[in-house]
Amino acid sequence: MQEIIKSLVQKNNTKIVMIVLDGLGGLPLDGRTELETARIPNLDALAKTSATGLHVPVAYGITPGSGPGHLGIFGYDPLEWQIGRGVLEALGLGVELKSTDVAVRCNYATIQEGLIKDRRAGRIPTEKARKLTERLQKEIKQIDEAEIIFTQGVDYRFAVVFRFPEPLEEGSAEVNDTDPQKTGKPPLKPVPANHQSDRVARIAEKLVERVREILRDEEVANFILMRGIAQVPLIPTFEEVFGLKSLAIAIYPMYRGLARLIGMETPPVNGDIKEEIEFMKDNLEDYDFFFVHVKKMDSYGEDGDFKGKAGKFEEFDSFLPGILELNPDVLIITGDHSTPSVMKSHSWHPVPVILNSPYVFGGLSQAFTERECLRGELGIFPAIRILPLALANAGRLKKFGA
Amino acid sequence: MQEIIKSLVQKNNTKIVMIVLDGLGGLPLDGRTELETARIPNLDALAKTSATGLHVPVAYGITPGSGPGHLGIFGYDPLEWQIGRGVLEALGLGVELKSTDVAVRCNYATIQEGLIKDRRAGRIPTEKARKLTERLQKEIKQIDEAEIIFTQGVDYRFAVVFRFPEPLEEGSAEVNDTDPQKTGKPPLKPVPANHQSDRVARIAEKLVERVREILRDEEVANFILMRGIAQVPLIPTFEEVFGLKSLAIAIYPMYRGLARLIGMETPPVNGDIKEEIEFMKDNLEDYDFFFVHVKKMDSYGEDGDFKGKAGKFEEFDSFLPGILELNPDVLIITGDHSTPSVMKSHSWHPVPVILNSPYVFGGLSQAFTERECLRGELGIFPAIRILPLALANAGRLKKFGA
Repeated sequence: MQEIIKSLVQKNNTKIVMIVLDGLGGLPLDGRTELETARIPNLDALAKTSATGLHVPVAYGITPGSGPGHLGIFGYDPLEWQIGRGVLEALGLGVELKSTDVAVRCNYATIQEGLIKDRRAGRIPTEKARKLTERLQKEIKQIDEAEIIFTQGVDYRFAVVFRFPEPLEEGSAEVNDTDPQKTGKPPLKPVPANHQSDRVARIAEKLVERVREILRDEEVANFILMRGIAQVPLIPTFEEVFGLKSLAIAIYPMYRGLARLIGMETPPVNGDIKEEIEFMKDNLEDYDFFFVHVKKMDSYGEDGDFKGKAGKFEEFDSFLPGILELNPDVLIITGDHSTPSVMKSHSWHPVPVILNSPYVFGGLSQAFTERECLRGELGIFPAIRILPLALANAGRLKKFGA
Repeated sequence: MQEIIKSLVQKNNTKIVMIVLDGLGGLPLDGRTELETARIPNLDALAKTSATGLHVPVAYGITPGSGPGHLGIFGYDPLEWQIGRGVLEALGLGVELKSTDVAVRCNYATIQEGLIKDRRAGRIPTEKARKLTERLQKEIKQIDEAEIIFTQGVDYRFAVVFRFPEPLEEGSAEVNDTDPQKTGKPPLKPVPANHQSDRVARIAEKLVERVREILRDEEVANFILMRGIAQVPLIPTFEEVFGLKSLAIAIYPMYRGLARLIGMETPPVNGDIKEEIEFMKDNLEDYDFFFVHVKKMDSYGEDGDFKGKAGKFEEFDSFLPGILELNPDVLIITGDHSTPSVMKSHSWHPVPVILNSPYVFGGLSQAFTERECLRGELGIFPAIRILPLALANAGRLKKFGA
């Protein structure tokens, strides 16, 4: 399907804005959802004159993580393009991954007489761990053909990237975790699952050896464990597939990192919604597509803070007139997945969508809520259809067939 | 997709109840369907507080038989897992098929000078046929490596099972019918369509020879014709795929048989709805998933008995409070296909669904009818998505991707 879309793409001067309210969808508490509770007159008015519906991020019943949630609304099948744990961890730490990278989640650990005594090195604090990570980086810059890049995370966690001189074959990172998942056991050796993953396993093994030597006099953090060894997926870029020069505007590194995986430009932005919109305004002339990521709805949802989540919608609503003033040709407001406060977690529920352009019916939803979007002209549809719809509404897709 | 679901399954102590009202969906007679005519206050109340929608058993326009209808709502793609005629016939006769079986529908027939004179042996009555079938079973217990099992059906019909010592390769039952479909012609020889089906064809041929010898002095039923030679499909079990220990509660053998094909436990149950619910109650502690099959809506529909079908809904409605008292974590009420009384047959129409759990919106359907379910939060969706939805609502699916 993506091949078909690619063959139909034509360029023009339209601007497409996609605003992702992370964890948008909710569930009722005392009969009303977060969206149904929030006072959001601008969003309600926009829903009335827009195409509305609900998108299914992956499939009915499947709760997506942030990776699959975003890939879907960017027009990539999340079942086809799976992003490994190590890659997501590195993106979250702000590592600028390249297509030649393999990324690994690591823990500091305590080893004694060859057995794991503590899988988290007594949960050593970030600042202490950072010093160790800096020492490792100073001593280890290269193993065989791979550049080695360390990035400290929170507490005992950090990420390591093996940067190869050229992209690796598919399957090259199929190497097991070295974490035995239990104390009192020896760490596992990194073993290649196939011929392609020999190189990565060999470098992982040498890395463990070097680290052990360097940390041998540490009392607690004298070893490391590796998990989620993963290759950066060789995804065709957003510009290749959809012909859109695109700018990702996100405060959190992970979302910029996801956007960078498909070749969006991802300058760092500080602040919150207001600063993100200003940033878009300042860069409006230079791009075709703007992905604006608003994080906090999801965070409140995960915390079970129903009122906080509703309040964040109200805050966003107050900035909506400023976005409308920019007069994008196509404006999409949706989420990457639902995060109902009553569940304190991501969920499988379909996610509300507003698509505003001159080429919609409108008049079907009376407000921007889950239940009102159900009445809309887009129905319940797969997330990966949003991007083609956006292109069509922007006049960027030619007719298919004669 | 089933592989993805399998990888996300996690176990807990929830109970999922799926009630299948066979042939649930209908069509209007004088403007109202069977469901719209029936007085079903308990179902209506449940629909108001549940997720509702309509499932498409196979695809728009495809009228499913009972096999595909049930496989779909059990989460198996009915286009991928096709159940042969012989297997369905044997299941309907209560044969406890094993994974090593090949099943065949048979007719008694009359042959004269090598030509078929009567394809149904003068439609000999069941009791007369049963005696012949018993004689055949007494004389034929084994052919080559296969145990041979006869089971009498109605009138001139019966089933034969070839039970092999081990599961056969795929394609092993690709052998033609021996029924020439016309009188005055010789019976066809069972011919293997490929190398794998040599064994089954050879045993079928030997069986015909043995039967001909045994029945040669019969005046009417002196021969047999075979149709629908089919292998028991090697479907991964419900527990393997969905992690659910499951109990099938059904009065009719065919539905227990279908459930047994995917490894559900299928003790015989006598009675009707009341006895089925009591049976569930008595076994509630021992299983995770309960499939309760209610047959009679379909039978009335097939008979064109509009009032009878509506009445059966009213009867079921009166037992619904007893089901709700069992307090399942997820309760699904749906059908395997539609059987509109005005059509006197199965049909392709989407089938109403109620899904009740704490994680739904509700408030969208005012009654349990085809048209009210159309307003619901599940929309019109593929039958195979019901099971993943049930698992998600029961907290039995982990997040997909990070």
